[in-house]
Amino acid sequence: MNLPTNLSGQPGFGQARVVIEHVSPELDGGQFPIKAIPGDVVAVEADIFADGHDYITAVLLYKHTDEAVWTEMTMVLLNNDRWGASFVAEKQGRYIYTLEAWIDHPASWQHEIHLKVADGQRITSELLAGATYLDKMVERAGGRVIEEPPTRAKGKIKKKTDHSEEPPDAKALREMAALFRAGSAAANDDSYNEAVSVAESDQFTFYANRYPERNYPTRYAHELGVEVDRPRAGFSTWYCLFPRSASQDEGTGGVPVHGTFRDVEALLPRISGMGFDVLYLPPIHPIGLAHRKGKNNSVICQPGDPGVPYGIGSDEGGHDAIHAELGTVEEFKHLIAIASNYGMEIAMDLAIQCSPDHPWAKDHPEWFKKRPDGTIQYAENPPKKYQDIYPVYFETEDWKNLWEELKRVLLVWGSWGVRIIRVDNPHTKPFAFWEWIIAEVKKEFPDMLFLAEAFTKPKVMQQLAKGGFAHSYTYFTWRNTKADLQEYMEELTKGEMKSYFRPNFWPTTHDINPYSLQSGHEPQFLIRYFLAATLSSNYGIYGPSFELMEHVPFPNKEEYLNSEKYEVRRWDWDKTNRLTYLISLVNRIRHENTALQTTNNLTFCSVSDDAIMAYLKIAGNNRLLIIVNTDAYQRRAGIVQVPIWQLGIDPDQPYEVHDLLTEAYYTWKRADNYVELDPYVLPMHLFRIQI
Amino acid sequence: MNLPTNLSGQPGFGQARVVIEHVSPELDGGQFPIKAIPGDVVAVEADIFADGHDYITAVLLYKHTDEAVWTEMTMVLLNNDRWGASFVAEKQGRYIYTLEAWIDHPASWQHEIHLKVADGQRITSELLAGATYLDKMVERAGGRVIEEPPTRAKGKIKKKTDHSEEPPDAKALREMAALFRAGSAAANDDSYNEAVSVAESDQFTFYANRYPERNYPTRYAHELGVEVDRPRAGFSTWYCLFPRSASQDEGTGGVPVHGTFRDVEALLPRISGMGFDVLYLPPIHPIGLAHRKGKNNSVICQPGDPGVPYGIGSDEGGHDAIHAELGTVEEFKHLIAIASNYGMEIAMDLAIQCSPDHPWAKDHPEWFKKRPDGTIQYAENPPKKYQDIYPVYFETEDWKNLWEELKRVLLVWGSWGVRIIRVDNPHTKPFAFWEWIIAEVKKEFPDMLFLAEAFTKPKVMQQLAKGGFAHSYTYFTWRNTKADLQEYMEELTKGEMKSYFRPNFWPTTHDINPYSLQSGHEPQFLIRYFLAATLSSNYGIYGPSFELMEHVPFPNKEEYLNSEKYEVRRWDWDKTNRLTYLISLVNRIRHENTALQTTNNLTFCSVSDDAIMAYLKIAGNNRLLIIVNTDAYQRRAGIVQVPIWQLGIDPDQPYEVHDLLTEAYYTWKRADNYVELDPYVLPMHLFRIQI
Repeated sequence: MNLPTNLSGQPGFGQARVVIEHVSPELDGGQFPIKAIPGDVVAVEADIFADGHDYITAVLLYKHTDEAVWTEMTMVLLNNDRWGASFVAEKQGRYIYTLEAWIDHPASWQHEIHLKVADGQRITSELLAGATYLDKMVERAGGRVIEEPPTRAKGKIKKKTDHSEEPPDAKALREMAALFRAGSAAANDDSYNEAVSVAESDQFTFYANRYPERNYPTRYAHELGVEVDRPRAGFSTWYCLFPRSASQDEGTGGVPVHGTFRDVEALLPRISGMGFDVLYLPPIHPIGLAHRKGKNNSVICQPGDPGVPYGIGSDEGGHDAIHAELGTVEEFKHLIAIASNYGMEIAMDLAIQCSPDHPWAKDHPEWFKKRPDGTIQYAENPPKKYQDIYPVYFETEDWKNLWEELKRVLLVWGSWGVRIIRVDNPHTKPFAFWEWIIAEVKKEFPDMLFLAEAFTKPKVMQQLAKGGFAHSYTYFTWRNTKADLQEYMEELTKGEMKSYFRPNFWPTTHDINPYSLQSGHEPQFLIRYFLAATLSSNYGIYGPSFELMEHVPFPNKEEYLNSEKYEVRRWDWDKTNRLTYLISLVNRIRHENTALQTTNNLTFCSVSDDAIMAYLKIAGNNRLLIIVNTDAYQRRAGIVQVPIWQLGIDPDQPYEVHDLLTEAYYTWKRADNYVELDPYVLPMHLFRIQI
Repeated sequence: MNLPTNLSGQPGFGQARVVIEHVSPELDGGQFPIKAIPGDVVAVEADIFADGHDYITAVLLYKHTDEAVWTEMTMVLLNNDRWGASFVAEKQGRYIYTLEAWIDHPASWQHEIHLKVADGQRITSELLAGATYLDKMVERAGGRVIEEPPTRAKGKIKKKTDHSEEPPDAKALREMAALFRAGSAAANDDSYNEAVSVAESDQFTFYANRYPERNYPTRYAHELGVEVDRPRAGFSTWYCLFPRSASQDEGTGGVPVHGTFRDVEALLPRISGMGFDVLYLPPIHPIGLAHRKGKNNSVICQPGDPGVPYGIGSDEGGHDAIHAELGTVEEFKHLIAIASNYGMEIAMDLAIQCSPDHPWAKDHPEWFKKRPDGTIQYAENPPKKYQDIYPVYFETEDWKNLWEELKRVLLVWGSWGVRIIRVDNPHTKPFAFWEWIIAEVKKEFPDMLFLAEAFTKPKVMQQLAKGGFAHSYTYFTWRNTKADLQEYMEELTKGEMKSYFRPNFWPTTHDINPYSLQSGHEPQFLIRYFLAATLSSNYGIYGPSFELMEHVPFPNKEEYLNSEKYEVRRWDWDKTNRLTYLISLVNRIRHENTALQTTNNLTFCSVSDDAIMAYLKIAGNNRLLIIVNTDAYQRRAGIVQVPIWQLGIDPDQPYEVHDLLTEAYYTWKRADNYVELDPYVLPMHLFRIQI
């Protein structure tokens, strides 16, 4: 035989007739898993077809990696050779799924019976063929209808099989086969008709489906993964603060007091009271002295300048040590414990870079790039220079030890109780590294979640998410118009990204003071906050700065003047305003309305005004209609088209919408309804539709 | 080390930073090749990106499978991390291509030099780094700049390397490195400036590209194929006739004379004179007697009824034998030789099915499905029965021998000189079989082309094309309106199908008398013909029937009354009409205008009328504008918008369009021009744009 190589050892190759292709979801040929949280439905589709006109049966196979055996779900034909089935990813961890399909001869046979009987043909021969199918079902049902062949070893013919203890299904099937044979041979019409009637019955279909005849099944070539993270991966509300600015002590002479973990603890009632559940702290490690930067990133460091938390490492230690002025490891663990009492978690910040004083610079100079003169190359973004930072050199020949050390650091953090890590600039480290370390750390701490702080090109951000980051920063910060926001949300929630890229929306960060907010215009802050908190189930704010609507920029940059990255700040933690009121209210609404606890359940509504944006968020009976005026400077009015056909609202009946922000109730009718939003009053509605 | 399994044995895994994904064209992860003809440009694109901000170099690697080494083409960045390159598939056979990319450190270095120099920084250290890159280029250029380490085996230090015979590039690079080092160390500005000037120069870029530093390159995971068929795969004009109806003898008493291969030879001057280059014959094998069908598919066969050519096989032989009334194998080979003199090829018809009299039914009963009573199951499409046909049972346990026998048959046909095979109903045989047999037959006869006669579901037709069929029948036969035709053409020529599915358009076939032509309305025939011949570079007609506008249907079916499938017909081979005139003219135009010799070069133009369809076909300087009134019953007029911006036509200058059908010339100006087409005069223009 001169057959293709791939035929050898595959005796059924020439008989397997079904093709399975274009499976969705599937990322890059199964290279990466999609993401879910416990309880998510994973809806799988595929093109499944064969030559000829036979019936096909297809099953979705899935299992948690903890489980030994596959669970099967029968797929249904949707249309045009597209099949679908779904399963619930119930448990945290990794599920895998694949597909299998085969020609379903008994189903094809029954279909032909129907056609022939309807045509008035006598199907005696067909009944015998049907009995043969039933014989095989008896076997699969645990019975034994076919006589054993002579056992040559013993030289004698085995006795007739005993049916007395066979399972009920096997018995029923054996009787059905006998009925078919009797009907086929019968001279009288009654017996024949009874057999035909059973052959055409749902009973036959039922058994054929329960004990399927898998002739030469086609198994899909890939096993695909679903990474199921804990629920907080799907719904979280972040607050960022610099612990060194957490003191409520006014200080003396305008010099703020350096905050500590104890000071952070004192703020927890306030922050959790506003509805936040993740408290993210920029790096808390010892800060280097060499080339330390002064205020506003000055190369001149004044005595007393505390340095940049991102200049990590000193004689006191590196990434596995704690900056002494903040407290001890024990105090940090205490903060984590107290936070937990408030239902909050502490997220740490992983910035893989070093001060020249970092222990690695002495102990592992090979982990850094050297200049021709043998000195370590500091960070550059030509023409800019960052003499206080050594980037880690991932192309080092000693990369395996570097990776292991970084893993060790994260396991130390895990041992402290940390389960969320925000990663600084992951896009400047190799993708393979992230895929590896995230998987490795999750082996020890399955609850660990990583947020990718990558503001870079789309495909790079996507690749990081594919490689395991549970959350990703996004372009939301720079999407301001209705058109831009809608286009971006469609990309995030309707395309392939919806299956693996979990957006985490931030109106500002400690690195980004966007031009759109540098005016300090209060309605703009309200709008940007509200969009983040209602468009994405995961969002965060750069805490005190955002609450106080800080906006004075470093000249001509999207950064802050007097940024606390370079100095200790004192914030007025007692201050409240319209924004803090809205934040507390919206966070409460988010907790009470499941529709806001997931991101992809978004549908935009048509609005006649080009600044008013309206969107439905639906989860079960929780139906929200959110309307925002994205123009912070003008009153806008327009007609919102509510897709009542999708909501099941009777076009002849009025329905009530309840504004959860103002407690106002409106009675609406039909699809088109008038709205008017004045940014100086309140530029948004958050309606619960009462049906 | 607790690293992922795939890390072992891959020492550079952690250092390979580039990702290559979303390659196009790529069919099903590289499972199937795309298609081309010699001279086609294969344009390859991919997403290629890395962490960080370094420069990337990417190359397209390709080779014919005859060749041992890869040829490389440097890719260019198109936009948003999308890269592209192309190569010409010059030779028939199989090409493979893949991609490789790596971080280009010298390019990144030069970019940084530019930025630093522009910023006024002194780059003495950077020049030394540049010299190190140059040292490595010297080595790659065949020189040797770095001193050999001591050879411990000999216990002595080797002498300084001799540079006297090194290649010119190596010498130039070594001198450049020395210049950089001197410039770096220089006290005087002249020497430094000269080094900087060279470091920034195109000369450095040139050498860096010629001797690239491939650090830890990423090779794309798949090698992708291009199946290059001979030119006729891309451009062919088919004529179908039943040789038994080829006699020009009038016969006696209304009984037609059974035609022979000699009769076919006599028709060749006429058929080739009309511009056809493939003459396709339905099966020419012995016809079975058992259950032979009579005229109009009657189950009652009258004496003298010749039977159906698709009821293959009798005592005289099967698929490797010739029906004696047509002639001998030698006479068939003679026909092939004579046809070749006229520039024509003979296409045979592969119908894998048997008359009950076929030798296989006796010699290989296991190749057929048996009924419970042991008899062979005839073909059924319930409630219809085809007692004269045994389908071959591809699920047989003896499938390997079945496949080998079918291969043997095709090799026999190949030995007769046949190089085109039309396959009857390939969609009722396993996909794997076709993929195998087409590859096997092409090993012996690389020129062999297969046409898939599959009128079935879209994905099944696509899968057959992927598996190796050079041509495919299409839904064209049922696409009549402008909207339907344009949508279908977009699917064929703009989506993924364009890379592997070569349409072959047929207005009618011997099996299909479409409802749209059952009126016999002459303008409708002209339109349907013209669309087939100008929308697809491969098309065919069911010869004499179509020319004579045969249209009387078998009642309520899209089939012919008195079909020559069931009887010998006599056609009037001398008759000419407007349609035969148009066919000859359009075939000549197709041969003279390269734009009509390929299918995917199609662009539809906007037309104000919803029945007038206009399309550009462009190949180099050959620019055609084709305009058809798809309404065969009414004069239509409208404004055609010629995309002059795409054609490079000056909007202020007139241009001439030359109707190749009527030899009329029109002077047009700007994009919008008026056309009027009366189906009773001539419902189409075929303009050559004169620019």
